Amino acid sequence: MIILGIDPGTAICGYGVIRCEGNRLSAVAFGAVTTEAGTPMPERLVTIANGLDQIIAMYQPERVAIEELFFNRNVTTALTVGQARGVAILSAARCNIPVREYTPGQVKQAVTGYGRADKKQVQEMVRMLLALPAVPKPDDVADALAVAICCAHSLAGEAVWR
Amino acid sequence: MIILGIDPGTAICGYGVIRCEGNRLSAVAFGAVTTEAGTPMPERLVTIANGLDQIIAMYQPERVAIEELFFNRNVTTALTVGQARGVAILSAARCNIPVREYTPGQVKQAVTGYGRADKKQVQEMVRMLLALPAVPKPDDVADALAVAICCAHSLAGEAVWR
Repeated sequence: MIILGIDPGTAICGYGVIRCEGNRLSAVAFGAVTTEAGTPMPERLVTIANGLDQIIAMYQPERVAIEELFFNRNVTTALTVGQARGVAILSAARCNIPVREYTPGQVKQAVTGYGRADKKQVQEMVRMLLALPAVPKPDDVADALAVAICCAHSLAGEAVWR
Repeated sequence: MIILGIDPGTAICGYGVIRCEGNRLSAVAFGAVTTEAGTPMPERLVTIANGLDQIIAMYQPERVAIEELFFNRNVTTALTVGQARGVAILSAARCNIPVREYTPGQVKQAVTGYGRADKKQVQEMVRMLLALPAVPKPDDVADALAVAICCAHSLAGEAVWR
């Protein structure tokens, strides 16, 4: 099964495509759709949507995984990230790909075995689990791979896929 | 000029299409794209996106107007509304229609002449300015028409349209 993880943002939208066969995981592709500073929001959203549409068309994922976000800081940030998130979910849903959401705790637990692991630990485990030569950069890419791995673990644990 | 105002939401997405000729305004169409309670978010976003795509194709607006939102209450609400907003902006931007954002104060000022008018005053002025028999319901529809009216006023005041 191919899983696409997305870490949505309007400046950097990280993505990670992984393959899972039994309990073996491998990285198929990863990177980020980026938009230049100062670009108006409508244009940014089109760039992100088109980028994700291309990735979905190319890798034909059977699941899309996205992190559930909780902001205790900035409401404006929540609104902005929400916009990128809406566009990302739309790209998947228009292709009838089931979208799964996971909390940061679930992602950490799945990747490191510890729900309160720090960012570095998560990134290093992503690198190890996918046998990558280095931690993918920027962080958004590693985060996208992490949520894809979480989805793979979660599906492996489901008796019947919803 | 035809202007489409949108009041985005994942349960009710209000829209209002107005025509402005000189300083004369008229309502062309208004209503809401709605999604049923309990519908998963991906499906909701597709319904909203497809609904807005149809409205844009049908009325060919030259501007899309949307209210800038400030939440001091719920961050989760901001994230959810952000998702609907992202999808709405995307629909417009993919058709190369310029998107204009206005603060609640700008909308109130444009519609009632008073930046701190209450909701009822705004709704009643929307009804009067567009010569409607009654205030459009639900509130999201009146709000969408209000932001479209604000856009019309704002464009009338621009020497050169950006």
